[in-house]
Amino acid sequence: MSLDLDFDKSDGLVTAVIQDYGSNRVLMVGFMNREAFAKTLETGYATFYSRSRRKLWLKGASSGHRLVVKRISTDCDRDAVLVEVEALGPGVCHEGYQSCFFRQLDNGDWKVSEERTYDPGAVYGEKA
Amino acid sequence: MSLDLDFDKSDGLVTAVIQDYGSNRVLMVGFMNREAFAKTLETGYATFYSRSRRKLWLKGASSGHRLVVKRISTDCDRDAVLVEVEALGPGVCHEGYQSCFFRQLDNGDWKVSEERTYDPGAVYGEKA
Repeated sequence: MSLDLDFDKSDGLVTAVIQDYGSNRVLMVGFMNREAFAKTLETGYATFYSRSRRKLWLKGASSGHRLVVKRISTDCDRDAVLVEVEALGPGVCHEGYQSCFFRQLDNGDWKVSEERTYDPGAVYGEKA
Repeated sequence: MSLDLDFDKSDGLVTAVIQDYGSNRVLMVGFMNREAFAKTLETGYATFYSRSRRKLWLKGASSGHRLVVKRISTDCDRDAVLVEVEALGPGVCHEGYQSCFFRQLDNGDWKVSEERTYDPGAVYGEKA
């Protein structure tokens, strides 16, 4: 069995679910192409392919909030990976939250369900 | 804030990460179009859009292993949902495992890291 994943089903990408290795909280979802997956293995830091910017994206390159890979699993179709990480820093979401999934469905509306863990303006500057 | 998700980024689909509400284990990743998401809300059972079969897919329709929705969150971009579920039955994977993520990266190879929880042949018949 090789390390091959099915990159063909989604235009060269596999879905990457990022889960906290300690708490099991799902932190974010991203996409990896072959190169991003290889970089992730090579460096030990989660690296994605940004669909909007069309380039590799080392998570935490600007914020310092890198994701240290602890374990990687793949699914039955091999078109998704589950990456368990130790998250460096207070949060993975560029909006200042621990997880990108900070809004819950509540009475027919999305409601912010937790406090920010850091100030995105201080980390990312004015663009945040 | 409406219930709108960003279905435009991925050809009418959002990524749906399915997580066990009790154990926090990630069970599978699927995709939902508007109709699948609406059905999920309406019925309380996770419903996907099958990209290979190009139609709605009530998870567990044939096996009985439905996914009872307990909580739904969305991410900062609103192009993914995290669906926490109570999984009915011994497993969500059509290959007989509790989770579709039953293979871990181990010394440069994918290795099955757990035992099957049911016999897929008995549940799905010869096609499994």
